[in-house]
Amino acid sequence: MSDTPTPRHLPMLHARDLAPAPVFEKVAVIGLGLIGGSIALAAREVWPRGLLIAVDRKNVLEQAMVRHAIDVAADDLGVIAEADLVILAAPVRQNIALLAELDEYIPGAAVVTDVSSTKQDVVEAARALPARFTFVGGHPLAGAARGGFEHARPDLFKGRPWIFTPHSDASGDAVDRLRQFAAGLGAVPRSMEAAAHDRLVAFLSHLPQLTASALMAVVGEAVGAEGLALSGRGLVDTTRLASSPADIWRDIAWTNAADIRQALNALIARLSALRDGLEDGGVIEETFDEAARWRDALMKDRTN
Amino acid sequence: MSDTPTPRHLPMLHARDLAPAPVFEKVAVIGLGLIGGSIALAAREVWPRGLLIAVDRKNVLEQAMVRHAIDVAADDLGVIAEADLVILAAPVRQNIALLAELDEYIPGAAVVTDVSSTKQDVVEAARALPARFTFVGGHPLAGAARGGFEHARPDLFKGRPWIFTPHSDASGDAVDRLRQFAAGLGAVPRSMEAAAHDRLVAFLSHLPQLTASALMAVVGEAVGAEGLALSGRGLVDTTRLASSPADIWRDIAWTNAADIRQALNALIARLSALRDGLEDGGVIEETFDEAARWRDALMKDRTN
Repeated sequence: MSDTPTPRHLPMLHARDLAPAPVFEKVAVIGLGLIGGSIALAAREVWPRGLLIAVDRKNVLEQAMVRHAIDVAADDLGVIAEADLVILAAPVRQNIALLAELDEYIPGAAVVTDVSSTKQDVVEAARALPARFTFVGGHPLAGAARGGFEHARPDLFKGRPWIFTPHSDASGDAVDRLRQFAAGLGAVPRSMEAAAHDRLVAFLSHLPQLTASALMAVVGEAVGAEGLALSGRGLVDTTRLASSPADIWRDIAWTNAADIRQALNALIARLSALRDGLEDGGVIEETFDEAARWRDALMKDRTN
Repeated sequence: MSDTPTPRHLPMLHARDLAPAPVFEKVAVIGLGLIGGSIALAAREVWPRGLLIAVDRKNVLEQAMVRHAIDVAADDLGVIAEADLVILAAPVRQNIALLAELDEYIPGAAVVTDVSSTKQDVVEAARALPARFTFVGGHPLAGAARGGFEHARPDLFKGRPWIFTPHSDASGDAVDRLRQFAAGLGAVPRSMEAAAHDRLVAFLSHLPQLTASALMAVVGEAVGAEGLALSGRGLVDTTRLASSPADIWRDIAWTNAADIRQALNALIARLSALRDGLEDGGVIEETFDEAARWRDALMKDRTN
């Protein structure tokens, strides 16, 4: 409808030149598992002009290169020198160990975050970082039944909370940029105290995981493969988490032992009450009614 | 290719006249919940020439009539007099109580089965039936996250095991016909001792159910609705069973208390070992590795 003439010659344009400026120019992801790998895949889609540096074992890096998830890669920290954002995405105790190495490998200023499932120990360890680093703990509440880069996907964070645990030393600017970064990947950034975070995930994530694994081990041991073949969807759903990798969970259990112990004790107490009340309908009904109410709350505004 | 002439006038045919002869002519389903309702819907599809009699509360019967699941219905046992198969599909303790009423309401011979999730108590109670009744305990291992006729569906039994627990007094002919009936509805009939059945389902079905409900209650109580809103798929999957109706499970717990107690004790012991070993990586790894192996066994030859 406008009478603006169509220009004869359009300048040469590449799609990546039209993409938004990245929140961080050079992002180093250390550990390309499910979370680190999905961050790389998602960041690549959203900010094609940004540089993605990755550190992991060679065979993982090769997979990532094949999927065009990363630009620069190595199996040692030598490649991260220029990063303006470092994301620690190894199991949590490795992340803590990695914090102590940043001083040696990064000469300039950088924002540092992690994606560990527990926060208090990491935040505490990060206090020893030199002042040119700004650390803000992070935890994207996103996951899948199986870990590893082969299960990474760019939409893993879509609509999921990404919790940051800024402490007194964290700069507000770094927190703002990290929230922008997380939002860019599709997540919903939230801020929370590290201690509150750790208690929350002990119940929301660690307790269900330990329960699913314990249940699967107990049932398998009791009925064997032949018995399992007769199982219905109930056991299948309840144990969906039971394929999770042991190494990640060994670290989570170690770094969040106090909160997880409390959560396990609450569940053990409830199961013991059920056991002692199997012939007392009131005990069963009370737990079932309470569970059904919380389940409705859990599923509110969810589709799956 | 054949030169048989096309007949000018085909006799009037209704689709139902071409349907296979029903295994039982007059099937009475007492209790139109998820299982009883699905039996009626499936039998109607497979054997449209059979008569389906149902007993339940009036509002449930109205739903069933609207879905054309049943032919004859009432909220009392007066309608079942002519049945040649009676299926007890109420909660298990009601099924046991119903057994004592059959003598009064059915003058002739009939095969009687039930769909209760526990078998020893029902089989024991059925020994008191008059000799004109042949009882064979049954349990279709099929279910859904929610009970009630509104969730009933004709394909509920497709590919699922349907366990029969014939005891010494059961006639082989009745067992054969019941197996045919179950197979007709799409299930895979199996036979098993009642005691072996009860132990098996204590682990495969009752333990996961109680665990899911206990977990949901504990987590909901600890983190509240606001915390639950942050939960990922892990908790959602692990607690999918937590909407199950309390009344059915009150009965199951009562009638299978000894086996369930054993299963709960095994799980409590395992969770306690994890709690005491949170800082001992070996304990975590052992359970996770064992669980992952059983999970693979559970998922073998499954698609979901």
